[in-house]
Amino acid sequence: MANMDPIPVRVFSLNCWGIRYLSKYCSQRYHMIGDMLCKEKHDIVLLQEVWSEKDYLFLKKKLSCTHPYTHYFKSGVIGSGLAIFSKYRIHDTLLYRYSLNGYPYMAHHGDWFGGKAVGMAVLSLGNLTANVYVTHLHAEYNREKDSYLAHRVVQALELQQFIRHTSAGADVVILGGDLNMHPQDLGNRLLRSYTGLRDAYTETPNFDGCEGGVTLIADNPFISKKEIFPFEKGIRIDYILFKGSSRADIRCDSLSTTKGSVADSPFPYSDHEALTAELKLDSCVSAETGNDEAFKTPESSPGNLAELVDIVTEARTEVKVGLHCAERMRYTAARTGVMGLALLFLELLIAAVPWFALGAEQPFPQTSFYLLAALCFAILLTTSLLYIFYTIEIKSLQGAEDQMRLAVGSLHEKLRGFPVTQPQSSSQRSSEGQEPPALDPEE
Amino acid sequence: MANMDPIPVRVFSLNCWGIRYLSKYCSQRYHMIGDMLCKEKHDIVLLQEVWSEKDYLFLKKKLSCTHPYTHYFKSGVIGSGLAIFSKYRIHDTLLYRYSLNGYPYMAHHGDWFGGKAVGMAVLSLGNLTANVYVTHLHAEYNREKDSYLAHRVVQALELQQFIRHTSAGADVVILGGDLNMHPQDLGNRLLRSYTGLRDAYTETPNFDGCEGGVTLIADNPFISKKEIFPFEKGIRIDYILFKGSSRADIRCDSLSTTKGSVADSPFPYSDHEALTAELKLDSCVSAETGNDEAFKTPESSPGNLAELVDIVTEARTEVKVGLHCAERMRYTAARTGVMGLALLFLELLIAAVPWFALGAEQPFPQTSFYLLAALCFAILLTTSLLYIFYTIEIKSLQGAEDQMRLAVGSLHEKLRGFPVTQPQSSSQRSSEGQEPPALDPEE
Repeated sequence: MANMDPIPVRVFSLNCWGIRYLSKYCSQRYHMIGDMLCKEKHDIVLLQEVWSEKDYLFLKKKLSCTHPYTHYFKSGVIGSGLAIFSKYRIHDTLLYRYSLNGYPYMAHHGDWFGGKAVGMAVLSLGNLTANVYVTHLHAEYNREKDSYLAHRVVQALELQQFIRHTSAGADVVILGGDLNMHPQDLGNRLLRSYTGLRDAYTETPNFDGCEGGVTLIADNPFISKKEIFPFEKGIRIDYILFKGSSRADIRCDSLSTTKGSVADSPFPYSDHEALTAELKLDSCVSAETGNDEAFKTPESSPGNLAELVDIVTEARTEVKVGLHCAERMRYTAARTGVMGLALLFLELLIAAVPWFALGAEQPFPQTSFYLLAALCFAILLTTSLLYIFYTIEIKSLQGAEDQMRLAVGSLHEKLRGFPVTQPQSSSQRSSEGQEPPALDPEE
Repeated sequence: MANMDPIPVRVFSLNCWGIRYLSKYCSQRYHMIGDMLCKEKHDIVLLQEVWSEKDYLFLKKKLSCTHPYTHYFKSGVIGSGLAIFSKYRIHDTLLYRYSLNGYPYMAHHGDWFGGKAVGMAVLSLGNLTANVYVTHLHAEYNREKDSYLAHRVVQALELQQFIRHTSAGADVVILGGDLNMHPQDLGNRLLRSYTGLRDAYTETPNFDGCEGGVTLIADNPFISKKEIFPFEKGIRIDYILFKGSSRADIRCDSLSTTKGSVADSPFPYSDHEALTAELKLDSCVSAETGNDEAFKTPESSPGNLAELVDIVTEARTEVKVGLHCAERMRYTAARTGVMGLALLFLELLIAAVPWFALGAEQPFPQTSFYLLAALCFAILLTTSLLYIFYTIEIKSLQGAEDQMRLAVGSLHEKLRGFPVTQPQSSSQRSSEGQEPPALDPEE
């Protein structure tokens, strides 16, 4: 395949904040978003928090000429809120639901009800295959005392696993979405180090947007200062990430974000700022035999591997902390349930005493009896549900921890396989033949 | 990489029927399974229905010398029941939960409670990377009137998607498990045609087992004739499937199954028969540039593509039928709920009449009032839960149908891209540049 002109790809990502009847000016904002997308004609549009299918269908109709290929990722009762619009044909899609996503009783946070997931679409961009991912992780409501940290770390773990395992056949990978993590947060480091994904903001030579690339800013009228405290200027939690392969190079020529307002409009598109990245794709033939192994970024050097081991270990610690919390919560639920049961028995006992001893002398306090019994049943029902819920949480956290232990073991094995100095010498490697192909010299 | 001696890989798969206290001789059977695995020393052991973690830990301890690498796929309250034991290091694992899995109110079928999923493990077999999958699909309780058909088809769809998208980087793919589908069932055809996976039973020159390779047989003392009616000799629903890549060949030298009894034991390992396949892996360098595209089995000829289109269309029809059913069920739930609400209002009305008109002349029928009110609330609660549940089912079925529509569109596009006769002539292809790389000649 001879080198051709680079393919320009404009990618757009926005968290639409589309909760009907609850988000401010929801319908007007969708009209604005639709008009803008129609005009701007991005190649790939990645939207999050499109909670209502009606709004998706509105956009689909509006963009039918500019973006004929589209997919809405359905999941759960409310849906995943994820949508993709594309100029290029979508060949295939796959949705991966995260195993953890907050607590159902934290209804005011609402994350649990929207089944958070990562959606994948396989596109053909010219002669290249692009795997495009869109996702939205659990929100961070209190950075100081973040009770969802373990959940978000597990989501980041699953996100990087899903991307790594599904993108081996892709020439380029593009991820857009609201990660709800600051650039140097654990989950973000885990994602970037493991997958080799590069951040459009740090990679681009031309950035036009708010200082520091922040996407949740104080200047946005839908944002209260409280939400971004103590970061007065805002925080960067929305990203466009990308990586190439041995078969294609990818670079980001420019990145721009909205700045809290839209010209000729009384309010912005959303409470998040929108990102637009201009990417350039270049198909290439690697110097080697065209083997994928040539582009195994995260595991290509002992330094990277060692860093990765540190990050996974750190993540494992966070998951263990979360596991400890969940176990304590389950214990509390069980104890409360037992107390409810004891109360019920006590009540039955008290009720039985006048029955046997006093006869009909005193009137039986029927109302109090029923009220107390109802209370006991309510306690038992609630604690049983909580117990089941925490058991699921514990299983998921244990599963994530198991996977991390495996990963650390495998990374250590690879690290041992590396010779002290380049180039590789086969005598320095262990002789079990368990190294990955990337490390095996020709035999 | 020069060709080396083929790597022999012995793969074992068994549905363990491990429901503690319910499955017959559960603990004794685990001891038998453990002893046998210890003795046989298969390279890869894939187990299903290991519902209790305690039983997994028992096997893990027992096999610690022969199978040092192991993973138990945790999910939901009960778990996925999937476990893998390996002689080779497991580098990475990933679990994908199917979006549909029966109905919670069909408690006697139990499928809904065990979170059915497909587990993946990445292994290094010598210098080759193997993606090993283990899964267990929803059971078929009534072949004539299979109310779970749509669910199983969606599971098969998700299984093939997951395998296709995660195996691009693998040299060989091995899948073992209880698919709960006959060899020519729709889901099975969908899985095999789309992924290019080959069936060990049909591929092997040496088969030792029951006639027709059946794995649920009348001779097994745990099986009642009713379960396999009208197939007197049994049915084949457990499989070992495999495929190679441009970088490795794989063949099945022999396949054997148990035959309903175990020597020196009063009962067999499980109600399913166990499968053992002897595979041979051969790393090779393809004649081409080593590009993966050389091994795109299912899409390599117009005939295959056309067959695939037919199968996906058939699957789409089944999903539509399931969708229609689910919508009808949701409608029934909604109507029953409305009737419950009407009954409640009627009751309140009746209660209000004596209150206003009759005063204290007649005693108020308190007990009946409360009982009827409790009934109304029970109806409302049940129908609300069912309504939510059916909504989730409908969303999942719609999602699957959307994906199939996309897939058919993409397959048609590829079919159009094929020239009428080989070799390819670029003038016959559409000029939009949206064909996948496999079809693009060198430019």
